[in-house]
Amino acid sequence: MGYTEKDWLAINTIRVLAADATAKANSGHPGAPMGMAPVAHVLFNKFMKFNPKNPKWLNRDRFVLSNGHGCMLQYALLHLFGYAVTMDDLKTFRTVDSICAGHPESHDTPGVEVTTGPLGQGISNAVGLAIAQAHTAATFNKDGFPLVDNYTYSFLGDGCLMEGVSGEASSLAGHLQLGNLIAIYDDNHISIDGDTNCAFTEDVVKRYEAYGWHVVIVDDGDHDLEGMEKAIKECQAVKDKPSMIKLRTTIGFGSLQQGTHSVHGSALKADDIKQLKKKFGFNPEESFVVPQEVYDQYHKHAAEGAAAEEEWNKLFSNYANKYKSEHADLSRRLTGDLPEGWEKSLPVYTPKDDAIASRKLSETVLTKIEGVLPELIGGSADLTGSNLTRWKGAVDFQPPSTGLGDYSGRYLRYGVREHGMGAIMNGIAAYGTLIPFGGTFLNFVSYAAGAIRLSSLSQQRLIWVATHDSIGLGEDGPTHQPIETLTHFRALPNCMVWRPADGNETSAAYYVALTSKHTPSIIALSRQNLPQLEGSTIEKAIKGGYVTHEAEGADITLVSTGSEVCIAIDTVKYLADNHGLKARVVSIPCFEVFDAQSKEYRLSVLPDGIPSLSIEVMSTMGWERYTHEQFGLNRFGASGAYKDVYKKFEFTPEGVAKRAVATVDFWKSVPNVRSPINRAFQQLI
Amino acid sequence: MGYTEKDWLAINTIRVLAADATAKANSGHPGAPMGMAPVAHVLFNKFMKFNPKNPKWLNRDRFVLSNGHGCMLQYALLHLFGYAVTMDDLKTFRTVDSICAGHPESHDTPGVEVTTGPLGQGISNAVGLAIAQAHTAATFNKDGFPLVDNYTYSFLGDGCLMEGVSGEASSLAGHLQLGNLIAIYDDNHISIDGDTNCAFTEDVVKRYEAYGWHVVIVDDGDHDLEGMEKAIKECQAVKDKPSMIKLRTTIGFGSLQQGTHSVHGSALKADDIKQLKKKFGFNPEESFVVPQEVYDQYHKHAAEGAAAEEEWNKLFSNYANKYKSEHADLSRRLTGDLPEGWEKSLPVYTPKDDAIASRKLSETVLTKIEGVLPELIGGSADLTGSNLTRWKGAVDFQPPSTGLGDYSGRYLRYGVREHGMGAIMNGIAAYGTLIPFGGTFLNFVSYAAGAIRLSSLSQQRLIWVATHDSIGLGEDGPTHQPIETLTHFRALPNCMVWRPADGNETSAAYYVALTSKHTPSIIALSRQNLPQLEGSTIEKAIKGGYVTHEAEGADITLVSTGSEVCIAIDTVKYLADNHGLKARVVSIPCFEVFDAQSKEYRLSVLPDGIPSLSIEVMSTMGWERYTHEQFGLNRFGASGAYKDVYKKFEFTPEGVAKRAVATVDFWKSVPNVRSPINRAFQQLI
Ligand SMILES: [Ca+2]
Ligand SMILES: [Ca+2]
Repeated sequence: MGYTEKDWLAINTIRVLAADATAKANSGHPGAPMGMAPVAHVLFNKFMKFNPKNPKWLNRDRFVLSNGHGCMLQYALLHLFGYAVTMDDLKTFRTVDSICAGHPESHDTPGVEVTTGPLGQGISNAVGLAIAQAHTAATFNKDGFPLVDNYTYSFLGDGCLMEGVSGEASSLAGHLQLGNLIAIYDDNHISIDGDTNCAFTEDVVKRYEAYGWHVVIVDDGDHDLEGMEKAIKECQAVKDKPSMIKLRTTIGFGSLQQGTHSVHGSALKADDIKQLKKKFGFNPEESFVVPQEVYDQYHKHAAEGAAAEEEWNKLFSNYANKYKSEHADLSRRLTGDLPEGWEKSLPVYTPKDDAIASRKLSETVLTKIEGVLPELIGGSADLTGSNLTRWKGAVDFQPPSTGLGDYSGRYLRYGVREHGMGAIMNGIAAYGTLIPFGGTFLNFVSYAAGAIRLSSLSQQRLIWVATHDSIGLGEDGPTHQPIETLTHFRALPNCMVWRPADGNETSAAYYVALTSKHTPSIIALSRQNLPQLEGSTIEKAIKGGYVTHEAEGADITLVSTGSEVCIAIDTVKYLADNHGLKARVVSIPCFEVFDAQSKEYRLSVLPDGIPSLSIEVMSTMGWERYTHEQFGLNRFGASGAYKDVYKKFEFTPEGVAKRAVATVDFWKSVPNVRSPINRAFQQLI
Repeated sequence: MGYTEKDWLAINTIRVLAADATAKANSGHPGAPMGMAPVAHVLFNKFMKFNPKNPKWLNRDRFVLSNGHGCMLQYALLHLFGYAVTMDDLKTFRTVDSICAGHPESHDTPGVEVTTGPLGQGISNAVGLAIAQAHTAATFNKDGFPLVDNYTYSFLGDGCLMEGVSGEASSLAGHLQLGNLIAIYDDNHISIDGDTNCAFTEDVVKRYEAYGWHVVIVDDGDHDLEGMEKAIKECQAVKDKPSMIKLRTTIGFGSLQQGTHSVHGSALKADDIKQLKKKFGFNPEESFVVPQEVYDQYHKHAAEGAAAEEEWNKLFSNYANKYKSEHADLSRRLTGDLPEGWEKSLPVYTPKDDAIASRKLSETVLTKIEGVLPELIGGSADLTGSNLTRWKGAVDFQPPSTGLGDYSGRYLRYGVREHGMGAIMNGIAAYGTLIPFGGTFLNFVSYAAGAIRLSSLSQQRLIWVATHDSIGLGEDGPTHQPIETLTHFRALPNCMVWRPADGNETSAAYYVALTSKHTPSIIALSRQNLPQLEGSTIEKAIKGGYVTHEAEGADITLVSTGSEVCIAIDTVKYLADNHGLKARVVSIPCFEVFDAQSKEYRLSVLPDGIPSLSIEVMSTMGWERYTHEQFGLNRFGASGAYKDVYKKFEFTPEGVAKRAVATVDFWKSVPNVRSPINRAFQQLI
């Protein structure tokens, strides 16, 4: 309390910096930063606990700008508080290779927790951060050692609230009673199309109360700093509900156009900026100016944060004495490394083992490794019994008051909320102590495309357990049978798509997914049983592609994934018996990983001189990169018993052989058939 | 009112049929049909207006089973009321080529309005159906001629309510005050993971009231037929709000396992079915039995529906006398044909015309054709000024009470709700009188992947106006720059993805999109200006691919789309000047349409004997189908001015030429280079 001119100087400095940077870039969004500067000042300077010199300190408060287009607010704050964001960086806002990109990117900018901009994601990430905080606290805090008690704060705007993903995550947050989550809703009545009354007239307060949130209203977000402080305090005190502060603000406060959508998404005019600076006591002829008092004020708070971290480090040292193994576990987790030897827990199979559905093989992996990887936390979007994501004896992550579990539980009941699950996983992964996984049918991973894109861009390690991965799911029919899904995510940069063919390949998929610190993975798993292959080992499969059946003097290479590899292998015999043709078989469970192998290795798998045919019961798009001909399904599937459906579309040894013979005939006339691995030039990656 | 044994016999017949069909298929979901049979009976037999002999009658009430897994309920009803769904069809439930697929598919099954199963979609489609109804009524109804006054009813379950897409659509439905929309929520406390208290404890009534809905609660959905009837009547009477009836039911009512999730997704055991039949007075030794009284009762209601249609047909004839042009317009719309000569309104360009961004070219198309295509109705997900989707003078589709427009308006303010928009467009298209379009950035079309998949599967004509289609959007950066998006939707069957290079190609994209009655389209449009090409015409571009620059004795074919075609053309000169190489240029604005051309034509565009290089600033995946080498961006983009970003990634004549030279060199040693158009066998499509 007791706000003075000094506070308003800081607030107006943020506003002027936002105006200057968007003007220099001639691009960007000044309105939100100018409108939210007061609450940002109160939150960052009065409440938030952080050390700009170590943006990765575990117990820092997390801040998520869900309305990421307002990122000049965040960049200005990071700069003013002394993060490694310089004034020169602010001047390069929205130019190539700047750390101040058009929207906040966590892997580029120190102090940015998660990558935002696509609306609705940030607040959903915040739910994930709060889940991770609650779980980490329940796991590691001990009497006298409140190691983890940070808050997660998020700013969000009307756009974030209109997006369904935020509704999914917010409903779950209410159910989970995440008391350390505090969202501040910038209620400025403006979205890009103009006044929110043209499309967004629902009662947000009532909706969030319906979700089980605690909601406070602050009527004057432009001036009432005391009111904002009081509201945040009140929210901190509510420990069994997430909180939202509905804060009425004026977008672009200070601009001649304040309160209109014209300040939302484009720079202010030069004249407007001049009057703004005059009004706020700045020199209208100067740009990118920060009064020393503002630096002093903010650096003082930063120093308090640094001191708090120092205290915490001492606490953590003492913790080591009393809780040696917990200390070691937490310290290890923070490095991102897995425990030494963990991979010995991965199941290994021989061809004598039973045919098993790969979703079941995945369950076995989870069951075997959960004990050695305590950082593994996951669940399903209401398909637990189908995705087989829950190991026996798992405890649900639930508020203890429900009697269904507690916060140390590692099994998450996401409900039918795939997109929310994806965005929450991004938040859990970003927290730094956990590796999340989430299950749904492969077809419904697409519901979460917006979140998965950000997993990939922001380099989060997490795993989608994507079962029922093809027409092989059978009776549920075309509405549930993926055709385009693998292609979609294979085309997404930094996203590993796995489709294992048997037990060893399933173990390999998990091995690579868990050891790839900066890449999300989607593991596509069958509903139907798959035999254990003769030629598969974990060591081979972790290369992303390998020869599962070699043949001297082969006439053709059959290349496949998942449930079709065993069909390809059966085709070898069929071709020999019926056509006198020799076939070799290659399995490529993961394009992304195979592409990263040496050219020499890839050519040994897909050699020159032999025509090749891919076999996968979905879109052929993308397979042309590896094979000369493609057998797939460039149409929707069918509802029926899976064997009938495979037969209908000729995914049988006979059907494959027919295409193999055509392939051999077609390429016969071409001398020295060149492997598609050979390329004229390197791709930009 | 006055329900008797006769009613319960009908209800129990539905339950027994659902049990029999799932048992015969040994697959499917008996629980929802058995729980919802009472309300289905009341709704269909007391309220709904339909003629089974003409499932396409315009003014029929629409029914949407949003919890589509309960489809045996719908199939049973369709059969019992006399639609073209026979008892033999019911017996083939969930087998290959049955019209009773695992989830309801509108293009396969008479009487199914929209394709459901993927949760949250159906109720959102219902919002679209209700929008279409309100708009069609406002446009065509006249004093004494209430041509269109049907209701849209939808059943939905917990899963639908958890999905964000339904929240988006429901919020908009409340804003739009869609009084003829009535949703019935099957509140059975069960989802796949078990009791809803493990993940779904929000206050649904309060949430829907927050959206502006009228909500009624019926406590005993298992027995209280009078209460259900009363509730539906009450909802019909509320004309300025959509309504929801929260109906407490027992899932799998009658089963020994009733009220548990074990009846949700698998067939009942034989013993259980026997006791069920005994309890309901059926012979436990017989299956698929319908008492004649049930047929009689339902056929009576169907006959009333047929009579109502006959009445309506008379009304419509009289309407013809008084409102000749409206009658002609509506009659034409119902055929799906466009007005003769409409295509003359499409703008045509010559190379002398200015360079224009294709999003702006799209705006011009919409502006020129809206007058001749009154069935065109559309909007944007809060990006109107960026998508340029609103023609001058357009009236907003808004409740008149808002003062912002009226129901005859053709411009929809969707808010930031891409997925909701996609699902709503499916409903609008399914109504039968309108062609919807919707705008957002191409990158955020992915948020709607779940809905677009169903547009394609259920063959709905609608258009995504997808602007800011590449790194060419510039400063907004990687969070907004699509890389994988075109590949994703190109891999989706029956989805046309267009990326026009100039004005004529933009007109062609709209031409094909609008004349393809059974296919959705995504038109990817640039933010940056594009020159009008020398070689482009509408006639050429509607083939999906064509030669835009021919060269005798060419050394290479450059193949491109959209904003990169003009770079390819500039590369022709660069290659000639600097490398003495001759290049031809091909534009392929739409793979799907190009693939449908004759092989002869495709080979004339991409001939044998010339190596080819594709140029597109996004994922190269899929281009291997058309070209020998690919220049693209298999990584995320960058934030900066668009020219700087293109330069960074070498999408310049120099950068393309470098790859073109490498391509020519690489393929030099191969005699008679074969065009990728040649394939060993035909794909399954
Ligand atoms: Ca706003
Ligand atoms: Ca339910």
